[in-house]
Amino acid sequence: MDVNDALIQSQYQEIRRGSVVIAVLSLLRSPQYGYALLERLSQAGFEVEANTLYPLLRRLEKQGLLAAKWTTDEARPRKYYQTSTAGTDALAMLADEWRKLTGSLDSLLDKGDTA
Amino acid sequence: MDVNDALIQSQYQEIRRGSVVIAVLSLLRSPQYGYALLERLSQAGFEVEANTLYPLLRRLEKQGLLAAKWTTDEARPRKYYQTSTAGTDALAMLADEWRKLTGSLDSLLDKGDTA
Repeated sequence: MDVNDALIQSQYQEIRRGSVVIAVLSLLRSPQYGYALLERLSQAGFEVEANTLYPLLRRLEKQGLLAAKWTTDEARPRKYYQTSTAGTDALAMLADEWRKLTGSLDSLLDKGDTA
Repeated sequence: MDVNDALIQSQYQEIRRGSVVIAVLSLLRSPQYGYALLERLSQAGFEVEANTLYPLLRRLEKQGLLAAKWTTDEARPRKYYQTSTAGTDALAMLADEWRKLTGSLDSLLDKGDTA
């Protein structure tokens, strides 16, 4: 990876960060524990590290956008997360904002020849 | 603005942050000075504060994605920014990444009923 790749990587991170919140709120409409969610995200095209995801889940829980529940009926206790009612509202608003931004970007990019 | 609105605002910021880099690199394919760029961004649907934009321009210049030039032929000296060759390459890659993320998000959101 050369220097320019490293720069691009940091911009990629910035772009991905916002999309991951939408992806998490969307996937957690069905309850999941952290590790299973990590795999679902990866399958869906969102490469997130555990180091990034777990603090994000705790933050979204603290904000009330996710509800969390410990289950003890499996071999070891697991914390399941699920998108709350407030989280579902937030998801709709954020998805809407994402679409608006995509529309605005498409118009800009169409005006030049690059894309 | 109630508490929940404030939370959503912080998520909005995260989503917008990545899109603004693409918008800036796209708009600066034609040279602009900061204040004119701010107005163009706003017209294009990207609400960015000067406090956010000016450091971003300096960062992108430092990274070599923007070239800058002072002009002194106007009443007062102005720093014009333009997307560099490296910036044009970066723009193409970032726009491509944005489209991929949008595709992934669309698939996720279609799977539920929210959106």
